[in-house]
Amino acid sequence: MKKYVVAILGATGAVGSRLISELEQSSIPVKDVKFLASKRSAGKKLKFNDQEVIVEEATPESFENVDLVLSSAGGTVSKQLLPEAVKRGAVCVDNTSAFRMDENVPLIIPGVNEQQLIQHKGIIANPNCSTIQMVAALFPIYQRWGLEQIIVSTYQAVSGAGQSAWNEMLQQAQERLDNEELVANILPTAADKKHYPLAFNLLPQIDVFEDDGYTHEEWKMIHETKKILFNDQDSSRIKVTATCVRVPVEIGHGEAVYFTVEDKSAVASEIQLEIEQTPGLVLQDKPQEQIYPQPLLASGKRDTFVGRVRADNENPGAFHMWVVADNLLRGAASNTVDIAECLVKRDLVRVP
Amino acid sequence: MKKYVVAILGATGAVGSRLISELEQSSIPVKDVKFLASKRSAGKKLKFNDQEVIVEEATPESFENVDLVLSSAGGTVSKQLLPEAVKRGAVCVDNTSAFRMDENVPLIIPGVNEQQLIQHKGIIANPNCSTIQMVAALFPIYQRWGLEQIIVSTYQAVSGAGQSAWNEMLQQAQERLDNEELVANILPTAADKKHYPLAFNLLPQIDVFEDDGYTHEEWKMIHETKKILFNDQDSSRIKVTATCVRVPVEIGHGEAVYFTVEDKSAVASEIQLEIEQTPGLVLQDKPQEQIYPQPLLASGKRDTFVGRVRADNENPGAFHMWVVADNLLRGAASNTVDIAECLVKRDLVRVP
Repeated sequence: MKKYVVAILGATGAVGSRLISELEQSSIPVKDVKFLASKRSAGKKLKFNDQEVIVEEATPESFENVDLVLSSAGGTVSKQLLPEAVKRGAVCVDNTSAFRMDENVPLIIPGVNEQQLIQHKGIIANPNCSTIQMVAALFPIYQRWGLEQIIVSTYQAVSGAGQSAWNEMLQQAQERLDNEELVANILPTAADKKHYPLAFNLLPQIDVFEDDGYTHEEWKMIHETKKILFNDQDSSRIKVTATCVRVPVEIGHGEAVYFTVEDKSAVASEIQLEIEQTPGLVLQDKPQEQIYPQPLLASGKRDTFVGRVRADNENPGAFHMWVVADNLLRGAASNTVDIAECLVKRDLVRVP
Repeated sequence: MKKYVVAILGATGAVGSRLISELEQSSIPVKDVKFLASKRSAGKKLKFNDQEVIVEEATPESFENVDLVLSSAGGTVSKQLLPEAVKRGAVCVDNTSAFRMDENVPLIIPGVNEQQLIQHKGIIANPNCSTIQMVAALFPIYQRWGLEQIIVSTYQAVSGAGQSAWNEMLQQAQERLDNEELVANILPTAADKKHYPLAFNLLPQIDVFEDDGYTHEEWKMIHETKKILFNDQDSSRIKVTATCVRVPVEIGHGEAVYFTVEDKSAVASEIQLEIEQTPGLVLQDKPQEQIYPQPLLASGKRDTFVGRVRADNENPGAFHMWVVADNLLRGAASNTVDIAECLVKRDLVRVP
């Protein structure tokens, strides 16, 4: 059996630590691992299957003799280093937004569109966390009844903004409980000028604003969804729009998804059944028993949890659902490792 | 000038304390006040305009010689005591859901439909907190361009569930920060069987579930909106649907409102202008300067804050906006006292 040298780029981050454990639990035959990070983190000691691995500084040369790169070190690092890795023969699964809309880069959710992996030229992109769980939940519905329109409001956990933002929010929570002033230096996004507290607050800004008044996060949900479902062909077939809000939750994005199907014979009970029968989706939908998805219940799980499925009785073919998933696993590390597993199974760990 | 004896029913609660301060700051000529509460709270000492007022147990006889009742002591208490108050000649503004859908009870947002006050038979209802801020923000848009459809996702603060739920959520936050187990005995609603932590979590249940899978809170937003805008006539003219979610915020509901106007010539910049020119609405909408509504900024304010106004470019006449207001003030005490002021100004403080 072929075995692979796997590099994890950004190994010391919140997603990086989960990439390591997901890789440990995966079916990928690992010959050796390399844990790469910034110069600042080089020298740190991590574990892989109980063996100590010393974190190395990521440079173009780090990728010599590497077969597979799992990357989650930020868009700038990906843009700079992944082409260098590909040059050296490594196939890269990238968890940043750097290459997602590149027409030469497949944007993959296994279970939805992994057949597009065959087109890869060395880099495969992992969609945005908020996109993955929404599209995963909608896909069986799309396949059976078609989709006309998606309107989503997100409730996104702070861990999606990185470990330092996560720490800041917990610190702010303690400040509030101690009746001290809340200090904000990172959130809503380190990339923008102003910073606001998130603890016990809501921030309707994730990533920076585009000129049209949408945030880049909202833009991602719209355009990534179309790319995944239509592979850039005929992307006007489904209308997609979004409002993305950061909420004071540690792990687990919530999404209130309102969607309209083409085939108006769809009913809520059959949508529930379709979700229940789809691998990777878990139906939690018993209102009378107060069973519905919650971030605290989804945290640490690989699945996407769906509940509150119900018809909009005034609008034929329109439904609501409430989707929750662990943004660091389902929305990031698990999807990345699932892609890598698909590449291995299809013998696509080679730069064409 | 006519002066009024005003009773505050539920004076010791989270909304009650705000009813007191709103009444102090109002234009209502107050001859005397009575602070009423449950037997348990009787004897407590509160202030009105720096004068000590001893809380009395609310009984039918408490309303003898009272002109005006501002009520926020829960639906059961309202159902039992307000008819007794009306019998004794008092006009009641009720902040609970007890009478809202009663066809003999006007459901009022001053600035929207206070002309319906003239029909009152002794009881006037204050809409649900989440309904008030949404309808207040939509009303100028409705007047100028008409409305076809409203799809709202709410992000509701814990204080809307009462002081004990609020305390529980803060306690849970401290438990999390101390790495202890989170204890839940009240949330999502004391009226239901199961209880879940809200701190660092999301609960897609506010109030109990109806048979159709919607919560009663969602039902309220749908039916109260139609009653306010159409006074029970032709309520199918606007489609309204909602998903209501409790979030770990202390004060200030957020709402992602998606709406479709009848007149497709509407543009986002004119909607912004219309909002800016409406008394009681504050436009906070400069994305490039990161200006948008936030609960922490709205807390303690009487206004409704609107931002993130933008067109859905794939759906003509469709727009998003993000609406935030203090649920205890704008969504409760301020609206109640505004109704009382309207009653005084129109000389309607009399049971017909």
